[in-house]
Amino acid sequence: MGLFTKDIKTFDDLFVHLLRDIYYAENKILKSLPGMIDKATDANLKQGFQTHLMETEGQIKRLEEVFRMHGVDIKGTNCPAIDGILKEADEVAGEVADKEVLDAALIAAAQAVEHYEITRYGTMIAFARRLGRNDCASVLAKNLEEEKATDKKLTTMAENSVNLKAAS
Amino acid sequence: MGLFTKDIKTFDDLFVHLLRDIYYAENKILKSLPGMIDKATDANLKQGFQTHLMETEGQIKRLEEVFRMHGVDIKGTNCPAIDGILKEADEVAGEVADKEVLDAALIAAAQAVEHYEITRYGTMIAFARRLGRNDCASVLAKNLEEEKATDKKLTTMAENSVNLKAAS
Repeated sequence: MGLFTKDIKTFDDLFVHLLRDIYYAENKILKSLPGMIDKATDANLKQGFQTHLMETEGQIKRLEEVFRMHGVDIKGTNCPAIDGILKEADEVAGEVADKEVLDAALIAAAQAVEHYEITRYGTMIAFARRLGRNDCASVLAKNLEEEKATDKKLTTMAENSVNLKAAS
Repeated sequence: MGLFTKDIKTFDDLFVHLLRDIYYAENKILKSLPGMIDKATDANLKQGFQTHLMETEGQIKRLEEVFRMHGVDIKGTNCPAIDGILKEADEVAGEVADKEVLDAALIAAAQAVEHYEITRYGTMIAFARRLGRNDCASVLAKNLEEEKATDKKLTTMAENSVNLKAAS
Protein backbone atom coordinates (compact mmCIF):
# COMPACT_ATOMS: atom_id res chain seq x y z
CA MET A 1 0.00 0.00 0.00
CA GLY A 2 1.35 3.41 -0.92
CA LEU A 3 1.67 6.21 1.59
CA PHE A 4 -1.45 8.35 2.03
CA THR A 5 -3.18 6.96 -1.03
CA LYS A 6 -6.40 6.32 0.95
CA ASP A 7 -6.32 2.67 -0.08
CA ILE A 8 -8.28 1.56 3.01
CA LYS A 9 -11.88 2.28 2.06
CA THR A 10 -13.84 -0.26 4.12
CA PHE A 11 -13.69 -2.05 7.47
CA ASP A 12 -12.79 -5.19 5.52
CA ASP A 13 -9.84 -3.36 3.90
CA LEU A 14 -8.64 -2.38 7.39
CA PHE A 15 -8.91 -6.02 8.53
CA VAL A 16 -6.83 -7.16 5.54
CA HIS A 17 -4.31 -4.37 6.23
CA LEU A 18 -3.90 -5.57 9.84
CA LEU A 19 -3.56 -9.17 8.63
CA ARG A 20 -0.73 -8.12 6.32
CA ASP A 21 0.84 -6.01 9.08
CA ILE A 22 0.95 -8.95 11.53
CA TYR A 23 2.14 -11.31 8.76
CA TYR A 24 5.12 -9.01 8.16
CA ALA A 25 5.64 -8.72 11.94
CA GLU A 26 5.59 -12.50 12.57
CA ASN A 27 8.10 -13.04 9.75
CA LYS A 28 10.39 -10.32 11.18
CA ILE A 29 10.11 -11.91 14.66
CA LEU A 30 10.98 -15.33 13.19
CA LYS A 31 14.17 -13.81 11.74
CA SER A 32 15.08 -12.07 15.00
CA LEU A 33 14.62 -15.08 17.31
CA PRO A 34 17.88 -16.91 16.42
CA GLY A 35 19.81 -13.79 17.51
CA MET A 36 17.93 -13.73 20.82
CA ILE A 37 18.61 -17.46 21.35
CA ASP A 38 22.34 -16.79 20.76
CA LYS A 39 22.43 -13.86 23.19
CA ALA A 40 20.53 -15.57 26.04
CA THR A 41 22.64 -17.16 28.80
CA ASP A 42 19.97 -18.66 31.08
CA ALA A 43 19.21 -22.18 29.82
CA ASN A 44 15.44 -21.91 30.40
CA LEU A 45 15.29 -18.60 28.57
CA LYS A 46 17.27 -20.00 25.62
CA GLN A 47 14.88 -22.97 25.52
CA GLY A 48 11.87 -20.64 25.83
CA PHE A 49 13.00 -18.62 22.79
CA GLN A 50 13.64 -21.88 20.89
CA THR A 51 10.09 -23.07 21.64
CA HIS A 52 8.69 -19.69 20.59
CA LEU A 53 10.58 -19.89 17.29
CA MET A 54 8.75 -23.13 16.48
CA GLU A 55 5.43 -21.63 17.63
CA THR A 56 6.03 -18.59 15.39
CA GLU A 57 6.47 -20.87 12.36
CA GLY A 58 3.07 -22.41 13.19
CA GLN A 59 1.52 -18.97 13.67
CA ILE A 60 2.70 -17.86 10.22
CA LYS A 61 1.06 -20.96 8.72
CA ARG A 62 -2.18 -20.10 10.54
CA LEU A 63 -2.07 -16.54 9.15
CA GLU A 64 -1.66 -18.00 5.64
CA GLU A 65 -4.77 -20.10 6.36
CA VAL A 66 -6.68 -16.92 7.30
CA PHE A 67 -5.54 -15.20 4.06
CA ARG A 68 -6.87 -18.19 2.09
CA MET A 69 -10.16 -18.37 4.07
CA HIS A 70 -10.73 -14.67 3.44
CA GLY A 71 -9.80 -14.97 -0.26
CA VAL A 72 -6.99 -12.40 -0.34
CA ASP A 73 -3.34 -12.60 -1.47
CA ILE A 74 -0.84 -13.79 1.09
CA LYS A 75 1.53 -10.87 1.54
CA GLY A 76 3.00 -8.61 4.19
CA THR A 77 2.80 -4.85 4.49
CA ASN A 78 5.45 -2.70 6.12
CA CYS A 79 5.02 -2.57 9.92
CA PRO A 80 7.03 0.30 11.44
CA ALA A 81 5.81 -0.71 14.93
CA ILE A 82 7.53 -4.11 14.96
CA ASP A 83 10.58 -2.61 13.21
CA GLY A 84 10.84 -0.06 16.04
CA ILE A 85 10.28 -2.62 18.81
CA LEU A 86 12.97 -4.94 17.37
CA LYS A 87 15.37 -2.03 16.74
CA GLU A 88 15.01 -0.99 20.38
CA ALA A 89 15.62 -4.60 21.50
CA ASP A 90 18.85 -4.69 19.46
CA GLU A 91 20.03 -1.31 20.71
CA VAL A 92 19.40 -2.12 24.38
CA ALA A 93 21.05 -5.55 24.05
CA GLY A 94 24.08 -3.81 22.54
CA GLU A 95 24.33 -1.52 25.58
CA VAL A 96 24.36 -4.24 28.25
CA ALA A 97 27.75 -5.33 29.56
CA ASP A 98 26.70 -8.10 32.00
CA LYS A 99 25.30 -11.44 30.75
CA GLU A 100 22.73 -11.82 33.51
CA VAL A 101 21.50 -8.23 33.08
CA LEU A 102 21.33 -8.96 29.34
CA ASP A 103 18.96 -11.88 30.02
CA ALA A 104 16.65 -9.51 31.93
CA ALA A 105 16.82 -7.01 29.03
CA LEU A 106 16.04 -9.79 26.51
CA ILE A 107 12.93 -10.79 28.47
CA ALA A 108 11.75 -7.16 28.61
CA ALA A 109 12.27 -6.87 24.84
CA ALA A 110 10.50 -10.16 24.13
CA GLN A 111 7.53 -9.08 26.26
CA ALA A 112 7.25 -5.83 24.28
CA VAL A 113 7.04 -7.99 21.14
CA GLU A 114 4.42 -10.28 22.73
CA HIS A 115 2.28 -7.33 23.80
CA TYR A 116 2.33 -5.90 20.29
CA GLU A 117 1.09 -9.24 18.98
CA ILE A 118 -1.51 -9.55 21.77
CA THR A 119 -3.06 -6.17 20.95
CA ARG A 120 -3.04 -6.83 17.20
CA TYR A 121 -4.61 -10.29 17.49
CA GLY A 122 -7.19 -8.90 19.95
CA THR A 123 -8.16 -6.18 17.46
CA MET A 124 -8.24 -8.56 14.50
CA ILE A 125 -10.42 -11.14 16.29
CA ALA A 126 -12.96 -8.39 17.13
CA PHE A 127 -12.85 -7.21 13.49
CA ALA A 128 -13.24 -10.75 12.10
CA ARG A 129 -16.29 -11.41 14.30
CA ARG A 130 -17.86 -8.09 13.29
CA LEU A 131 -17.28 -9.03 9.63
CA GLY A 132 -19.08 -12.34 10.21
CA ARG A 133 -15.81 -14.26 9.82
CA ASN A 134 -15.96 -16.40 12.95
CA ASP A 135 -13.88 -18.97 11.05
CA CYS A 136 -10.97 -16.49 10.73
CA ALA A 137 -11.49 -15.33 14.34
CA SER A 138 -11.09 -18.92 15.62
CA VAL A 139 -7.77 -19.37 13.83
CA LEU A 140 -6.47 -15.98 15.02
CA ALA A 141 -7.56 -16.85 18.59
CA LYS A 142 -5.11 -19.78 18.56
CA ASN A 143 -2.24 -17.37 17.87
CA LEU A 144 -3.51 -14.99 20.55
CA GLU A 145 -3.62 -17.74 23.17
CA GLU A 146 -0.03 -18.78 22.34
CA GLU A 147 1.23 -15.19 22.61
CA LYS A 148 -0.52 -14.72 25.96
CA ALA A 149 0.95 -18.00 27.26
CA THR A 150 4.45 -16.97 26.09
CA ASP A 151 4.10 -13.60 27.82
CA LYS A 152 3.09 -15.31 31.09
CA LYS A 153 6.00 -17.78 30.85
CA LEU A 154 8.41 -14.85 30.37
CA THR A 155 6.98 -13.06 33.43
CA THR A 156 7.43 -16.21 35.53
CA MET A 157 11.01 -16.70 34.29
CA ALA A 158 11.85 -13.04 35.01
CA GLU A 159 10.34 -12.94 38.48
CA ASN A 160 11.41 -16.40 39.69
CA SER A 161 14.97 -16.48 38.40
CA VAL A 162 16.35 -14.11 35.74
CA ASN A 163 15.78 -10.81 37.61
CA LEU A 164 17.11 -12.38 40.80
CA LYS A 165 20.38 -13.34 39.09
CA ALA A 166 20.58 -9.99 37.28
CA ALA A 167 20.19 -8.02 40.52
CA SER A 168 22.69 -10.08 42.55
CA MET B 1 23.27 6.75 26.03
CA GLY B 2 25.50 6.13 23.03
CA LEU B 3 25.03 3.20 20.71
CA PHE B 4 26.78 0.00 21.75
CA THR B 5 28.91 1.70 24.40
CA LYS B 6 27.96 -0.95 27.00
CA ASP B 7 26.70 1.78 29.32
CA ILE B 8 24.25 -0.56 31.08
CA LYS B 9 26.43 -2.41 33.57
CA THR B 10 23.99 -3.32 36.36
CA PHE B 11 20.34 -4.27 36.84
CA ASP B 12 19.86 -0.80 38.35
CA ASP B 13 21.28 0.79 35.16
CA LEU B 14 18.76 -1.22 33.14
CA PHE B 15 15.93 0.01 35.40
CA VAL B 16 17.02 3.63 34.88
CA HIS B 17 17.30 3.02 31.13
CA LEU B 18 13.70 1.72 31.04
CA LEU B 19 12.55 4.69 33.13
CA ARG B 20 14.11 7.09 30.60
CA ASP B 21 12.66 5.07 27.71
CA ILE B 22 9.09 5.31 29.06
CA TYR B 23 9.61 8.99 29.97
CA TYR B 24 10.48 9.70 26.33
CA ALA B 25 7.54 7.52 25.22
CA GLU B 26 4.96 9.25 27.45
CA ASN B 27 6.14 12.67 26.23
CA LYS B 28 5.86 11.52 22.59
CA ILE B 29 2.35 10.15 23.28
CA LEU B 30 1.35 13.46 24.89
CA LYS B 31 2.39 15.26 21.69
CA SER B 32 0.55 12.78 19.44
CA LEU B 33 -2.79 12.83 21.30
CA PRO B 34 -4.05 16.22 20.01
CA GLY B 35 -3.74 14.84 16.45
CA MET B 36 -5.74 11.76 17.41
CA ILE B 37 -8.42 13.92 19.07
CA ASP B 38 -8.68 15.96 15.84
CA LYS B 39 -8.96 12.87 13.65
CA ALA B 40 -11.58 11.06 15.77
CA THR B 41 -15.22 11.44 14.70
CA ASP B 42 -17.06 9.40 17.38
CA ALA B 43 -17.81 11.76 20.29
CA ASN B 44 -17.01 9.15 22.97
CA LEU B 45 -13.70 8.32 21.33
CA LYS B 46 -12.76 12.00 21.06
CA GLN B 47 -13.64 12.42 24.76
CA GLY B 48 -11.69 9.26 25.64
CA PHE B 49 -8.54 10.59 23.96
CA GLN B 50 -9.06 13.94 25.71
CA THR B 51 -9.27 12.19 29.10
CA HIS B 52 -6.17 10.14 28.27
CA LEU B 53 -4.26 13.31 27.41
CA MET B 54 -4.90 14.63 30.93
CA GLU B 55 -3.98 11.24 32.42
CA THR B 56 -0.74 11.22 30.43
CA GLU B 57 0.22 14.59 31.91
CA GLY B 58 -0.27 13.09 35.37
CA GLN B 59 1.72 9.97 34.43
CA ILE B 60 4.67 12.11 33.32
CA LYS B 61 4.60 13.88 36.71
CA ARG B 62 4.59 10.46 38.44
CA LEU B 63 7.62 9.38 36.39
CA GLU B 64 9.42 12.56 37.46
CA GLU B 65 8.62 11.60 41.06
CA VAL B 66 10.21 8.15 40.48
CA PHE B 67 13.35 9.79 39.00
CA ARG B 68 13.63 11.94 42.15
CA MET B 69 12.93 9.02 44.52
CA HIS B 70 15.63 6.99 42.81
CA GLY B 71 18.08 9.92 42.79
CA VAL B 72 18.74 10.10 39.04
CA ASP B 73 18.48 12.90 36.48
CA ILE B 74 15.07 13.41 34.88
CA LYS B 75 15.64 12.78 31.20
CA GLY B 76 14.41 10.71 28.31
CA THR B 77 16.32 8.29 26.12
CA ASN B 78 15.47 7.55 22.53
CA CYS B 79 12.70 4.91 22.24
CA PRO B 80 12.53 3.48 18.71
CA ALA B 81 9.61 1.26 19.76
CA ILE B 82 7.19 4.12 20.48
CA ASP B 83 8.50 6.03 17.44
CA GLY B 84 7.63 2.99 15.30
CA ILE B 85 4.21 2.45 16.89
CA LEU B 86 3.26 6.14 16.41
CA LYS B 87 4.68 6.21 12.86
CA GLU B 88 2.52 3.20 11.99
CA ALA B 89 -0.53 4.90 13.56
CA ASP B 90 0.06 7.98 11.38
CA GLU B 91 0.62 5.97 8.23
CA VAL B 92 -2.51 3.84 8.68
CA ALA B 93 -4.63 6.89 9.55
CA GLY B 94 -3.37 8.51 6.33
CA GLU B 95 -4.54 5.50 4.32
CA VAL B 96 -8.15 5.42 5.55
CA ALA B 97 -10.77 7.12 3.39
CA ASP B 98 -13.89 6.60 5.56
CA LYS B 99 -14.37 8.48 8.85
CA GLU B 100 -15.97 5.59 10.70
CA VAL B 101 -13.30 3.15 9.54
CA LEU B 102 -10.72 5.74 10.64
CA ASP B 103 -12.19 5.67 14.18
CA ALA B 104 -11.69 1.88 14.27
CA ALA B 105 -8.09 2.35 13.02
CA LEU B 106 -7.44 5.01 15.67
CA ILE B 107 -8.62 2.66 18.43
CA ALA B 108 -6.37 -0.13 17.11
CA ALA B 109 -3.42 2.28 17.07
CA ALA B 110 -4.18 3.59 20.57
CA GLN B 111 -4.39 0.03 21.91
CA ALA B 112 -0.94 -0.75 20.44
CA VAL B 113 0.36 2.28 22.37
CA GLU B 114 -1.40 1.15 25.58
CA HIS B 115 0.04 -2.37 25.29
CA TYR B 116 3.56 -1.00 24.89
CA GLU B 117 3.08 1.00 28.07
CA ILE B 118 1.49 -1.95 29.89
CA THR B 119 4.45 -4.25 29.14
CA ARG B 120 7.01 -1.57 30.08
CA TYR B 121 5.33 -0.65 33.38
CA GLY B 122 4.93 -4.37 34.20
CA THR B 123 8.66 -4.93 33.65
CA MET B 124 9.68 -1.82 35.60
CA ILE B 125 7.47 -2.66 38.58
CA ALA B 126 9.09 -6.13 38.78
CA PHE B 127 12.54 -4.52 38.49
CA ALA B 128 11.79 -1.89 41.16
CA ARG B 129 10.59 -4.56 43.61
CA ARG B 130 13.67 -6.70 42.96
CA LEU B 131 15.84 -3.61 43.61
CA GLY B 132 14.08 -3.08 46.95
CA ARG B 133 12.35 0.06 45.61
CA ASN B 134 8.75 -0.72 46.58
CA ASP B 135 8.21 3.06 46.80
CA CYS B 136 9.01 3.45 43.07
CA ALA B 137 6.98 0.30 42.27
CA SER B 138 3.87 1.78 43.95
CA VAL B 139 4.05 4.97 41.90
CA LEU B 140 4.63 3.04 38.65
CA ALA B 141 1.70 0.76 39.51
CA LYS B 142 -0.64 3.79 39.40
CA ASN B 143 0.41 4.44 35.79
CA LEU B 144 0.01 0.75 34.93
CA GLU B 145 -3.54 0.66 36.31
CA GLU B 146 -4.51 3.74 34.29
CA GLU B 147 -3.09 2.23 31.08
CA LYS B 148 -4.94 -1.05 31.66
CA ALA B 149 -8.19 0.84 32.34
CA THR B 150 -7.72 2.91 29.15
CA ASP B 151 -7.08 -0.25 27.12
CA LYS B 152 -10.29 -1.84 28.48
CA LYS B 153 -12.33 1.31 27.76
CA LEU B 154 -11.02 1.30 24.17
CA THR B 155 -12.01 -2.38 23.75
CA THR B 156 -15.53 -1.62 25.01
CA MET B 157 -15.87 1.39 22.70
CA ALA B 158 -14.64 -0.65 19.71
CA GLU B 159 -16.85 -3.66 20.32
CA ASN B 160 -20.02 -1.84 21.44
CA SER B 161 -20.09 0.97 18.91
CA VAL B 162 -17.12 1.99 16.75
CA ASN B 163 -16.57 -1.33 14.92
CA LEU B 164 -20.33 -1.64 14.40
CA LYS B 165 -20.48 1.76 12.68
CA ALA B 166 -17.26 1.07 10.72
CA ALA B 167 -18.59 -2.24 9.37
CA SER B 168 -22.03 -0.93 8.40
